[in-house]
Amino acid sequence: MDPRIREHAATIVNHSVDLRSGDNVVIDAHHVAEDLVVALHEVVGEHGANPLAVSHRTGKRAQRAYLRAADDEFETPEHELALIEETDVYIAVRAGENATETSDVDPETSAAYSQARQPILDERLSTRWCLTQFPAPANAQLAEMSTEAYEGFVWDAVNKDWETVRKHQAQMVEILDPAETVRIVSGDTTDVTLSVAGNPTINDYGERNLPGGEVFTAPRPDSVEGEVLFDKPLYHQGREVTDVYLQFEGGRVVDHTAGKNEAVLTEVLETDRGARSLGELGIGMNRDIDRFTYNMLFDEKMGDTVHMAVGRAYEDTVGEENEQNNSAVHVDMIVDMSEESYIEVDGEVVQRDGTFRFEDGFES
Amino acid sequence: MDPRIREHAATIVNHSVDLRSGDNVVIDAHHVAEDLVVALHEVVGEHGANPLAVSHRTGKRAQRAYLRAADDEFETPEHELALIEETDVYIAVRAGENATETSDVDPETSAAYSQARQPILDERLSTRWCLTQFPAPANAQLAEMSTEAYEGFVWDAVNKDWETVRKHQAQMVEILDPAETVRIVSGDTTDVTLSVAGNPTINDYGERNLPGGEVFTAPRPDSVEGEVLFDKPLYHQGREVTDVYLQFEGGRVVDHTAGKNEAVLTEVLETDRGARSLGELGIGMNRDIDRFTYNMLFDEKMGDTVHMAVGRAYEDTVGEENEQNNSAVHVDMIVDMSEESYIEVDGEVVQRDGTFRFEDGFES
Repeated sequence: MDPRIREHAATIVNHSVDLRSGDNVVIDAHHVAEDLVVALHEVVGEHGANPLAVSHRTGKRAQRAYLRAADDEFETPEHELALIEETDVYIAVRAGENATETSDVDPETSAAYSQARQPILDERLSTRWCLTQFPAPANAQLAEMSTEAYEGFVWDAVNKDWETVRKHQAQMVEILDPAETVRIVSGDTTDVTLSVAGNPTINDYGERNLPGGEVFTAPRPDSVEGEVLFDKPLYHQGREVTDVYLQFEGGRVVDHTAGKNEAVLTEVLETDRGARSLGELGIGMNRDIDRFTYNMLFDEKMGDTVHMAVGRAYEDTVGEENEQNNSAVHVDMIVDMSEESYIEVDGEVVQRDGTFRFEDGFES
Repeated sequence: MDPRIREHAATIVNHSVDLRSGDNVVIDAHHVAEDLVVALHEVVGEHGANPLAVSHRTGKRAQRAYLRAADDEFETPEHELALIEETDVYIAVRAGENATETSDVDPETSAAYSQARQPILDERLSTRWCLTQFPAPANAQLAEMSTEAYEGFVWDAVNKDWETVRKHQAQMVEILDPAETVRIVSGDTTDVTLSVAGNPTINDYGERNLPGGEVFTAPRPDSVEGEVLFDKPLYHQGREVTDVYLQFEGGRVVDHTAGKNEAVLTEVLETDRGARSLGELGIGMNRDIDRFTYNMLFDEKMGDTVHMAVGRAYEDTVGEENEQNNSAVHVDMIVDMSEESYIEVDGEVVQRDGTFRFEDGFES
């Protein structure tokens, strides 16, 4: 086994989920990630915790067969809910054999299925969870990289000194946490203003997401005004959606278009009430992630980017007095901020063309 | 996908577990059985039931890593127990990449792990469960067959007219169900007498086991007297145990030997109190299973054989007044009855050299 896989498992267990003796652990992974699953079982055993391997999220061939055969009436699977209610640590490993495996599932069916599973998602988010990536060949293909180069890319990104990352990002948390208003401008296609007043900013240094490398908070759902053109394609349920454009009024998406697969975008926005509002604003700060790989787990952490998600807000990014977006979906999309772009916080520019106020070369 | 796989999935769902709309289903399978897992998800979707894929029983590489890393103190995994408590249908698919994957796990560790998991086994046996086989190359290798020939062997054995099987076997149930005493004699190495008084005999026609093809009951735990030499090697936790010999007094194993891996046998017998007594007497009646494949799921169903299991008795084979063997283990072993052998029920020979009383060519 590649020694970087055991290092990855140790990082997940010791850093990301802080595993303790007696913890009930679910490891959700596709079999192309078997080496990592084996390495995880090893460290879980060493810690005196209890592993169970499932492949809900990741068994896409099976999920496709199920969704195409089912009608559109789904109920919450009570056995899976019972499992997650008794779970302390949930480790989800992204990896697959075909990134477009669910491309011939009706988006409406997928959306109905997501909605029925919302109680399970709620429970999963209340565990010490971690979402990470195994560098399978299909994921390398999606990234337009050789498998070996992609392995290097993934393991360099996850096996690093997360304490240094934490300190670097804390500088941006200090700016965003007490802020009221944020404005994102990029070229002449994106100019959006939103309020984060009272909502905490989280420093993501490789705990819930591995790799980490962003700071993020929740916009107040009704505060978003303006328009955004997302520069990078979105992969949702096996389909590529390009050139997503959203126009906001009073916090709601009032107009949307896409270049390819607009129907997928429409289905997302029509999942439920919250799907038409933002649930996250994130600022990518991880300069070791030096290329787009068409994988949100990495792309959203890139330096010189911001991302916004329609749908659900993470509970810990919503102040007690504020409304939480409770949608069944959470779909991130990215704006490239490297050129002709700036982030304004309470009227002051804090990042221009990718360089932060607290970094060398910043020009306000 | 081979059409016999969809047929297999349909047999499991429609015949073995009688799937109903709304059922919560667990599918436990190794990824070499992915085609069957996909086909099962399809029919589960058609029936409006809820599937969850796990790989507890079957992820042997991961289990090996876990057991070697853990110390010998195990607790019952509460999250898995909660899952099974809410499960209506449990489908376990045998298949693997290496039949000897757990051969370097300490048998004592495996036994301690089994014991901690007993409440989960109890719950699983109270679902509408089915244990079946996918013809993976490693299983073909264990059977000393080519993969293609083994595929034919497995799918011929599972995809058949189970109603005809049921009727044929009912003739033996009629003999065994009201019986008091059973004596099994084979050559000069096996002569064992036991009581089945008050214990029901089950007709296995492909429900809990697929393939089916046996009738079985539970001996009264304290009634077994005599000695048995099991003719066929036993594979337990990845190790081959040959020439198992057991001597019974007052129902308990008082002497045991084996040709190879006797320590594995000893560990089994020392798991707990019940592991030293029989929990099952079965009579193989499936003549379509025409060769030993070193796989108990098939071997125990062969015509011209009987099998006995040390350990746990199935609840439905124990009369209400009678004691149930509640061991954490259940380990089957086979006696070849094709030559110099007979089964006596209440003093009458009911099978000689593999031919039953109700069949042509029987000589009492």
